[in-house]
Amino acid sequence: MTTTEPTGSAPRRGRGRPGYDQAAILRAAVELFNRKGYDATSMGDLAKELGLTKPAIYHHVTSKEQLLSQALDDALDELTAAVTAATGDRAGQTAYERLREVVRRSVEVLVAHQPTVTLLLRVRGNSGVELAALERRRWLDDRLAALVADAVAEGALRDTVPPALVSRLLFGMVNSLVEWYSADGAYDPAMLADAITVIAFDGLAKHAA
Amino acid sequence: MTTTEPTGSAPRRGRGRPGYDQAAILRAAVELFNRKGYDATSMGDLAKELGLTKPAIYHHVTSKEQLLSQALDDALDELTAAVTAATGDRAGQTAYERLREVVRRSVEVLVAHQPTVTLLLRVRGNSGVELAALERRRWLDDRLAALVADAVAEGALRDTVPPALVSRLLFGMVNSLVEWYSADGAYDPAMLADAITVIAFDGLAKHAA
Repeated sequence: MTTTEPTGSAPRRGRGRPGYDQAAILRAAVELFNRKGYDATSMGDLAKELGLTKPAIYHHVTSKEQLLSQALDDALDELTAAVTAATGDRAGQTAYERLREVVRRSVEVLVAHQPTVTLLLRVRGNSGVELAALERRRWLDDRLAALVADAVAEGALRDTVPPALVSRLLFGMVNSLVEWYSADGAYDPAMLADAITVIAFDGLAKHAA
Repeated sequence: MTTTEPTGSAPRRGRGRPGYDQAAILRAAVELFNRKGYDATSMGDLAKELGLTKPAIYHHVTSKEQLLSQALDDALDELTAAVTAATGDRAGQTAYERLREVVRRSVEVLVAHQPTVTLLLRVRGNSGVELAALERRRWLDDRLAALVADAVAEGALRDTVPPALVSRLLFGMVNSLVEWYSADGAYDPAMLADAITVIAFDGLAKHAA
């Protein structure tokens, strides 16, 4: 992968760095999209942020939309892998066990890919790229709702709340991580995954049992 | 309150309407901010959306930031009332009872004020108005975390998850409503409030007890 030297105007990355490759430009773009909003961010803003000229950036990427597409794929590919693993044919595992596992794996994905998942969760469908991402999210949501329904049908989950609503609330709690989790924060991913699965499945209240 | 007739270019509201007052302009602005992003929305966009001229809008509001400030206050005033009611001195109520009640009331506020709460939850601190709103959110978060800590100290909540984390996850689940709830949807507010309190406090799993 080719690299590009930053211009002198914003040498923010410390000395001795070899410059920017496509992955570093993508990381900076995602950070900027999350901070300013995708629509409000221009390629000129990105160039300024990186201390590069616009031609130097276009040496690596064809458009702002390409950066968005790559970022959303990063999040969606990981989430799809987690959901596919949990919803596939798994001999000997109940739907309930697979649901607990997909919650745990989703937390791990959100923690490891927080910037791109944050961007994904803010997508509103303002372009073809965004609509395609929403389509993939919907596919994931449908799979997860079906898994919840299976766990209810097994008799493992309470049946007083509709499965589609359970799925929305459960993953609403999981997804809310991206709003405040940061890798230098107080919680390690395994502890977070434990906390979320315990709260969601076993509840916050101490039970008389 | 004065009203302004729409120009002929976008008569979207049906005949016989008296035009727009400040509240209607605010509602349209919030909808547009949520759809396009606040930074990416101009007063020209808002005028176009309403079929008004820009001077007609400036007859009612002084700036885009004033609209943002009013919208954020709408959400924050309601949430503050809910939290203050639950965290004040309430003879005879345990912290656990007050926590369950504030969860329920928060759901009601989110449902009744979904557009302005959505806007609030997306604020990132890009201006003085946004920083002031974040400050008020932080005050609410601190109050809620203290209430969770009290409920743990009472022995009502499990003590294996730190109270600050419980508070984040609990209200992360509540706040996730704004991403998908809509008033014409399948769930009525009381049923939603029940579902959320049951999942959060009693858990999804059927307990052997």
